[in-house]
Amino acid sequence: MKSRIGIVGGGQLGRMLGFAAKRMGFIVSVMDPTPHSPAGQVVDLQLEGDYSDPEVTEELAGISDFITVEIEHINTDTLKKLASEGAIVNPAPRTIEMIKNKLAQKEYLAKNKIPTAKYLEVSSIKEIETAAKQFGFPFLLKAKLNAFDGRGNALIKRKEDIAKEFMRLGGKDLYVEKYVPFVKELAVVIARDIKGKLISYPVVETIHKNNICHIVMAPAPINKKYEQKAKRLATRVMNHLKGAGVFAIEMFLTKKGEVLINEIAPRVHNSGHYTIEACYTSQFEQHIRAVTGLPLGNPDMKVPAAVMINILGERKGSADVKNLEKALRMSNVSVHLYGKAETKLERKMGHITVVGKSVEECLNKAKKARKTISI
Amino acid sequence: MKSRIGIVGGGQLGRMLGFAAKRMGFIVSVMDPTPHSPAGQVVDLQLEGDYSDPEVTEELAGISDFITVEIEHINTDTLKKLASEGAIVNPAPRTIEMIKNKLAQKEYLAKNKIPTAKYLEVSSIKEIETAAKQFGFPFLLKAKLNAFDGRGNALIKRKEDIAKEFMRLGGKDLYVEKYVPFVKELAVVIARDIKGKLISYPVVETIHKNNICHIVMAPAPINKKYEQKAKRLATRVMNHLKGAGVFAIEMFLTKKGEVLINEIAPRVHNSGHYTIEACYTSQFEQHIRAVTGLPLGNPDMKVPAAVMINILGERKGSADVKNLEKALRMSNVSVHLYGKAETKLERKMGHITVVGKSVEECLNKAKKARKTISI
Repeated sequence: MKSRIGIVGGGQLGRMLGFAAKRMGFIVSVMDPTPHSPAGQVVDLQLEGDYSDPEVTEELAGISDFITVEIEHINTDTLKKLASEGAIVNPAPRTIEMIKNKLAQKEYLAKNKIPTAKYLEVSSIKEIETAAKQFGFPFLLKAKLNAFDGRGNALIKRKEDIAKEFMRLGGKDLYVEKYVPFVKELAVVIARDIKGKLISYPVVETIHKNNICHIVMAPAPINKKYEQKAKRLATRVMNHLKGAGVFAIEMFLTKKGEVLINEIAPRVHNSGHYTIEACYTSQFEQHIRAVTGLPLGNPDMKVPAAVMINILGERKGSADVKNLEKALRMSNVSVHLYGKAETKLERKMGHITVVGKSVEECLNKAKKARKTISI
Repeated sequence: MKSRIGIVGGGQLGRMLGFAAKRMGFIVSVMDPTPHSPAGQVVDLQLEGDYSDPEVTEELAGISDFITVEIEHINTDTLKKLASEGAIVNPAPRTIEMIKNKLAQKEYLAKNKIPTAKYLEVSSIKEIETAAKQFGFPFLLKAKLNAFDGRGNALIKRKEDIAKEFMRLGGKDLYVEKYVPFVKELAVVIARDIKGKLISYPVVETIHKNNICHIVMAPAPINKKYEQKAKRLATRVMNHLKGAGVFAIEMFLTKKGEVLINEIAPRVHNSGHYTIEACYTSQFEQHIRAVTGLPLGNPDMKVPAAVMINILGERKGSADVKNLEKALRMSNVSVHLYGKAETKLERKMGHITVVGKSVEECLNKAKKARKTISI
């Protein structure tokens, strides 16, 4: 059996992919610029190198039967070249390439008539002001590239902030997005196997804090009708994306009951961390199955409800977890820590998953558990 | 927070302890004679050295805040010395020392009036023949030391086999055990935290094949009365063992409804592998919590039933898994492979856990899944 997996990126997503892949007996290598990265700690080998480094990417491919990614901000040109030479790369490099440029992603959605927020490419303060007139305040100013976890995003509430945010975001490669006054944010984690079969996880509700996914409630406490709408939309999106693996589709549910696409991630996602404890097959095992040509597993929940809350860094400095024992005194609380040596304000240092009888019960407990721990 | 764990032994138990410890953010080192051992592949550091090597054991202790074991056949003298010097070693080295000598374990149980099979120390063929007269055929001839997974055990059915088995088992450090005509074999995985609090997992039924734990059914399909009897007995045994951690107590249930202790393991155990998918807290996380001074987690099952079946090697040579995809086509089947480079007849190469509505349903599926895979 072909058994060597190479993952571009070695953060917490790579770490949890690593746990799943190692559990199934695969030989796993990752590439990441940080020595002894979160994933590097738990897999067979880490190659040190920037995500975009073509040589290290090729070196990784040379020792892997299957290549995949845990982050989209990588060298897709190299992956395309490797795929054209016969390497098994999933998801498809051209899909990763399209998604990593958030404007290209928007254009692709629009071209395929998939409902999403209105947007406009902008290259000057003047163009932003024109867009502001069209979309009204507040609106979003976003960077096309390297934008994730709140980086590269600004919510602009008044004209006076435009110039400042334009400069802060680098003054180029930007676009403006109409603000969607949503009632809830939803996400669907969905997987495709090598033969094209799709399987989707329950629709979850996500709560963001400073543009970072902060809380995930599974299943989303919404009407069945919207749940089905969200799943159908996720399937429609998937039909326009190429390659095997887990994808996450983030959505807005509006007051009128519309469901719009917010963003796509061509990889496992923070909104699916709860699946480790709550589902028959975690999103991480699912991704490993998908990219290695194995059949997909059952994505259903084996508990009635689950809530995930992120453990974000509270200061800058050496990571030192405090009061873990207090959180673990509560039953059915699982604490995941990513092994990052340095903590930073708002950095994803770990997460907590609580499973239980209802989302409400889990949510209360998750918030309480989160409050006890400091990092 | 103290965060460095050292594990003596780097086999599959160390590997699964490693997954649990890394998930919780610990820094984990193991010692094992095999380079890139099953556990070494998934933790921060492996020291190469025999389990009984005093120097490597001290080296491991030197880089660890908490020391524990995944195997009992280790250098307990060194662990005792380290503990006397202030190292945090769990479970207690003297308990590991007593358990690793199976005759000492028997004597300890007998001294504490805990029901177990009758036994006699023997040092010659003549003494075995005398014991045979007392116990009748069949009876067991067992090695005191280094006995596990069927090694060091012989079921003697007739007088003619005594001499041969005496020689095969090394001709010394042996004892005879009366054969218990059990109706079922049971096991209780039980954990103690640093303050002495005990928590026990559901009673399971185990089916052995050639003295190797082969199938585990959870919960054991037995009368509630015997379940309680088994749990009470496990607690009684624990009161005579020292230190924190997970222990496994193997038992016989006889036709008359007696429950006798078969064997004790001072560590996580094959009979508890199903807890990864089936319980709120796996035995591995539980052990890590216990030995690091964290509170114990909920040991209850989150699914109605689970069955574990071992994947034992079928030949000698390089390990090469075949038909994994066929097993994974069945829903709610989790396949664990231990990353051992070499397969051997009856060697533990991995295991399968199936969760579902009833033990019967899971058992059928587990056997079917096991048959598809070859290694």
